[in-house]
Amino acid sequence: MTGPLPPPAEPGMLLDRVDTPALLLDLDAFETNLESMAREARSAGVRLRPHAKSHKCPEIARRQAALGAVGVCCQKVSEAEVFVAGGIQDVLVTNEVVGDVKLARLARLARSARVGVCVDDLTQVEALARAAQAADKELDLWVELDVGANRCGAGTGEAVLSLASAITSRRGLRFAGLQAYQGSAQHLRTPEERRAAITEAAARVRAAVALLEEAGFETPLVTGAGTGTWELEAASGAWHEVQPGSYVFMDADYGRNLGEDGRPVHRFRQSLFLLATVMSRSAPGRAVVDAGLKAHSVDSGMPLVDGIPGADYTRVSDEHGVIELSGPGDLRLGDKVRLVPGHCDPTVNLHDWLICYRGDQVEAVWPIAARGAFY
Amino acid sequence: MTGPLPPPAEPGMLLDRVDTPALLLDLDAFETNLESMAREARSAGVRLRPHAKSHKCPEIARRQAALGAVGVCCQKVSEAEVFVAGGIQDVLVTNEVVGDVKLARLARLARSARVGVCVDDLTQVEALARAAQAADKELDLWVELDVGANRCGAGTGEAVLSLASAITSRRGLRFAGLQAYQGSAQHLRTPEERRAAITEAAARVRAAVALLEEAGFETPLVTGAGTGTWELEAASGAWHEVQPGSYVFMDADYGRNLGEDGRPVHRFRQSLFLLATVMSRSAPGRAVVDAGLKAHSVDSGMPLVDGIPGADYTRVSDEHGVIELSGPGDLRLGDKVRLVPGHCDPTVNLHDWLICYRGDQVEAVWPIAARGAFY
Repeated sequence: MTGPLPPPAEPGMLLDRVDTPALLLDLDAFETNLESMAREARSAGVRLRPHAKSHKCPEIARRQAALGAVGVCCQKVSEAEVFVAGGIQDVLVTNEVVGDVKLARLARLARSARVGVCVDDLTQVEALARAAQAADKELDLWVELDVGANRCGAGTGEAVLSLASAITSRRGLRFAGLQAYQGSAQHLRTPEERRAAITEAAARVRAAVALLEEAGFETPLVTGAGTGTWELEAASGAWHEVQPGSYVFMDADYGRNLGEDGRPVHRFRQSLFLLATVMSRSAPGRAVVDAGLKAHSVDSGMPLVDGIPGADYTRVSDEHGVIELSGPGDLRLGDKVRLVPGHCDPTVNLHDWLICYRGDQVEAVWPIAARGAFY
Repeated sequence: MTGPLPPPAEPGMLLDRVDTPALLLDLDAFETNLESMAREARSAGVRLRPHAKSHKCPEIARRQAALGAVGVCCQKVSEAEVFVAGGIQDVLVTNEVVGDVKLARLARLARSARVGVCVDDLTQVEALARAAQAADKELDLWVELDVGANRCGAGTGEAVLSLASAITSRRGLRFAGLQAYQGSAQHLRTPEERRAAITEAAARVRAAVALLEEAGFETPLVTGAGTGTWELEAASGAWHEVQPGSYVFMDADYGRNLGEDGRPVHRFRQSLFLLATVMSRSAPGRAVVDAGLKAHSVDSGMPLVDGIPGADYTRVSDEHGVIELSGPGDLRLGDKVRLVPGHCDPTVNLHDWLICYRGDQVEAVWPIAARGAFY
């Protein structure tokens, strides 16, 4: 009795018959987002390696690849395994991976695909070399540079140089370039703040690259950037490859980023929705829906209620969401409500199925095959 | 390529070989919690119907039943299905259930077990009667009374009476009693606040019961209460059955509840931990672990770092947790860290396996079979 429940919908079903809570994908918006990003990255002259941690869905990764993506990013080895099994030939784990069990799996995966991983510590270079040699394969090692996120990554150009030198001296390892992701810049609200953060990040990248070149390394490939800032990285000329993930779906938190005109940026369309049902209308001005903490993540704030003026999702518990009705919009018992999740990535990770629709009809049901793949 | 990944451990393995992130259950603490609650509920003279939404694990439900629980509570029909399939004979869905598909499944489930569900709307009584009649089974209907949580539930004794009358007049339905859960009282920090909330809740229960008795109903069973307040409900005499869930595991948020002496209540032991690995130590005073938003829920605050003085989990992203080290405790790359989750219920729902250990050894691996069962 393990494994996912059957999907809450099947192709051909009308949207209002879908069981809830269900994660909906508006295919028109989704396809527009995929095409826009592919076209814009191409015209900006950068390689596109979308982050698959957002969608965890091999079907989406294959569509990104078909539109020209060079491969995908993942955060974990088990995610990478799912995408390689799903036909993706080039996977970069944009993260440090520690522990012999995981490293052995990562190196074995290099038998079926090009596999990259990040390092920020010399002992990891040794451990990865042993794993690659044991699997008799070569791994791409990307030196992570901390460009302002204060999370992982080498803190100085000297540390980068020392790691790159260690990598090139080990059989089984290839120095692939720099991972330089300014994660904390993605949700800075104003374009000035985002520009300042990426200007600073670019300076750190250039300093590290200059040190590498002085030491005789070829100019390395630099990869990084997310949905909130990727145009800045691309325009800087310091990055060769961008890693946006959320652009596929968007969410309420990204919806709060402002553009040059002081209004929310709507560069990509909201394609992801959580369908919920009103299960209680016992008090005036309050509707309770069947989607709570176990169906969406509130780490970046509450979801928005789509298309119902004056309806605010104000309180959440495990399986309840309280919507306050203070405007002209009303909700009756049994009504279906579309919510815009606060944060798309951890919300998708709560679901086993993506219910893809066009108009009022379900067109496909895609497994979120890497759901729970956090090893 | 759907279904859970293989478990990160197997019985007999030493704890420090368990892959991470992994959800650990300290069996000694867990068994103590199960036995304490069973004994105390018995001595308080109330029936115990633990809430299985916390653990989603049939093995745990069977152990609760073996210690005298009358059955379990669930929040969703699909959860109830998992527990009935797991051998539980009496399941109460402590929630309103809306939609024909769900109601038909619920009524079919009554062929295999005693099944209860809550109502707070007359149209639901009709819909449930149709479903019960179609399945040719009887359902227990509990009228939910709002006792201060301002979520679901009838707001007045008159509304309760009207629902109870409708239930008794329909074939296939049995009026089982009142669901009266003061969810928002569970994490009030001081005993005075919790006592005031439950005193008010008890007054609402007594008023509704008095109206029912005046109208000729037998005194109905009253069920409700959680880990934070159940002793108050039991002591009030107004409840006959209690529904604690989190007592099995506990979490950082419950750890902030204060007792009469002004110090944290430690009535139950912390048995649930998230095992994580340090994957980056690239900056002084900062360790980054491999457990982020996809391995634990931060809706009620950050997790605590167990047993490392001065270590604070301060920032979270999808697959990263930043631990600041400001005390004597240190962490090296590759070290395993035990985290106390901020909120147990939604954290458990992110995992497919519970790694049960005693001392330093894994004793069992239990499937969290109702993980993702939110339909």
